[in-house]
Amino acid sequence: MESLRVALGERAYPIHIGRDLLARADLYRPYLTGGSAAIVTNQTVGPLYAERVKAALEEAGARVITVAVKDGEEAKSWQSLNRIFDALLEARCGRDTLIVALGGGVVGDVAGFAAAIYQRGVDFVQVPTTLLAQVDSSVGGKTAINHPLGKNMIGAFHQPRAVIADLGTLDTLPERELRAGLAEVIKHGFALDAGFTEWLETNIDLLLKRDAAALTHAVKRSCELKAAIVGADEREAGARALLNFGHTFGHAIEAGAGYGTWLHGEAVAAGMVMAAELSALMGDLKKTEVTRLRELIRRGGLPTKGPALAPERLMELMTLDKKAAKGRTRFVLLESIGRAALRGDVDERLVRQAIVAAAQ
Amino acid sequence: MESLRVALGERAYPIHIGRDLLARADLYRPYLTGGSAAIVTNQTVGPLYAERVKAALEEAGARVITVAVKDGEEAKSWQSLNRIFDALLEARCGRDTLIVALGGGVVGDVAGFAAAIYQRGVDFVQVPTTLLAQVDSSVGGKTAINHPLGKNMIGAFHQPRAVIADLGTLDTLPERELRAGLAEVIKHGFALDAGFTEWLETNIDLLLKRDAAALTHAVKRSCELKAAIVGADEREAGARALLNFGHTFGHAIEAGAGYGTWLHGEAVAAGMVMAAELSALMGDLKKTEVTRLRELIRRGGLPTKGPALAPERLMELMTLDKKAAKGRTRFVLLESIGRAALRGDVDERLVRQAIVAAAQ
Repeated sequence: MESLRVALGERAYPIHIGRDLLARADLYRPYLTGGSAAIVTNQTVGPLYAERVKAALEEAGARVITVAVKDGEEAKSWQSLNRIFDALLEARCGRDTLIVALGGGVVGDVAGFAAAIYQRGVDFVQVPTTLLAQVDSSVGGKTAINHPLGKNMIGAFHQPRAVIADLGTLDTLPERELRAGLAEVIKHGFALDAGFTEWLETNIDLLLKRDAAALTHAVKRSCELKAAIVGADEREAGARALLNFGHTFGHAIEAGAGYGTWLHGEAVAAGMVMAAELSALMGDLKKTEVTRLRELIRRGGLPTKGPALAPERLMELMTLDKKAAKGRTRFVLLESIGRAALRGDVDERLVRQAIVAAAQ
Repeated sequence: MESLRVALGERAYPIHIGRDLLARADLYRPYLTGGSAAIVTNQTVGPLYAERVKAALEEAGARVITVAVKDGEEAKSWQSLNRIFDALLEARCGRDTLIVALGGGVVGDVAGFAAAIYQRGVDFVQVPTTLLAQVDSSVGGKTAINHPLGKNMIGAFHQPRAVIADLGTLDTLPERELRAGLAEVIKHGFALDAGFTEWLETNIDLLLKRDAAALTHAVKRSCELKAAIVGADEREAGARALLNFGHTFGHAIEAGAGYGTWLHGEAVAAGMVMAAELSALMGDLKKTEVTRLRELIRRGGLPTKGPALAPERLMELMTLDKKAAKGRTRFVLLESIGRAALRGDVDERLVRQAIVAAAQ
């Protein structure tokens, strides 16, 4: 087991990475102050791992209930939250209950948000079971549900007490989801770390073969990079926005294709190509560097092109997303591989050109 | 105008107390960083004051929308929250929107909670228009909605950026609500400040006549006492629980009578008599001190006895409340006037005796 730390003062917490971790009672025990725990999972992950997590929590002395929400993005809803709250209140779970989020990014988001607002906030632990959740969404405390008018519009910053990334769960992960997770790994490289990018270029085939050592390094380095950013900017006032590289285009792709058609990681992959093309058009990134990004994404089995949508439609969706979310339009662009920067001065015509260039 | 400060580090904020404050643009201007504001009010308070607040916000440069939730406790629901979110998203309000909670405790709770979770948290200002909200609920950052299985079960600690307590709004406050607010003022005296208790014994009649100077002092002293406690214990890990004097019995009275039958302040008033009787039975409080509490509550036009319910029923409701909320039963008792303490070692038979004694 390897462990690292997200440095957030009194909200600091460890990330444990390794195999056979989710059944270890000692990793939960420090957070079971009140003697009760609630596992929040979904209908796919629950049958695979919930019993083992429950046994570990019970071994650590807890009374345990389990709640399953729906599979997929639709679980990020009031309905899921209320199902969780009903279960917690029916079981008389108090403020000292520990919520354990067992699943991918969706489960982590909704369980984390439930923890943020149940009785004005209870502790929670993330047990991510997808590559995407292990390298990205389980770290950093962003929790949310969706609103018909926008994704992640209702939520909270609520840091977990610990992240337990059990690499054994990746054994059963569908191929397509493994690749979607790799998109965020690639993002960490290109946005933040040239050396890690080179490592990925060397090891992408091993990662696709689920080589244990390679996966361990990829998860650990991604968590280190993300932890450093989150430690410096918990509430996304500055540097944390760099983690959104590829996401402005990506969100528009997800919305334009119809939610659920493209996986988040797939949309981010194609979005990164667009953002890289835009960086080149702005005169920052070399064409050869754009090619390296495109090539790594292709080798990762991920789409380098967006769905068949008019550039204008994609731009309209981006404006909507931006206006709803932040009130102003900014892009995360690359100055070079491993160095992302936030830019607010982007000409719309260049954005259109970048979308067209990415589709070539 | 008098101003005091809640000392919470980077979350510190001012409380302004005086007449004709809600229409002052300068009091809102520091918080209008993003240029948009949303007034959340209800159907009773909105028609009285929303236009004036809107004019002040516009004078300070903001684009303003207004959302009215239902009157009364039923506004503390998902439905109200969603009405607020729909309005914010339809008006493309971003993360830099200021929410202005204009109304009593219910509006403050639901608007504050909306601010806590809209786009993972936006700023809000409390403009309390009832005595209860001015002396108690607008200060301290507790926000919540109700769940069918318990009051305030879903919520967040989210401090306002400022509290603007306009005493002019008390001119139109129904008599019964004025008295209910006085219950929390009396609570602050008996739980925390013997000198303030004496002042109240001298000035209760002036307060009931809405004497401006007396109300100013009562609001200010209550806010000072509450601010000091909140500053020392934001998330109710210790001292803040003392503010719940009378509330364990009070919540059971509210539930037992049927929500909405008794006002919160009325239930707290009768609850304080029960808590004082229990303090006397525990050997802490003198009988003469119990009599002083009872007399002040009577003079404030508030009930000293609970509803016609068997003591057993009230105790059952308290257990439910406790178990749901905290997992253990503790009482806030008085060691003397102005000195409350948290006690976990209370014999059930004494609780029953206290309920019977209070009904005499």
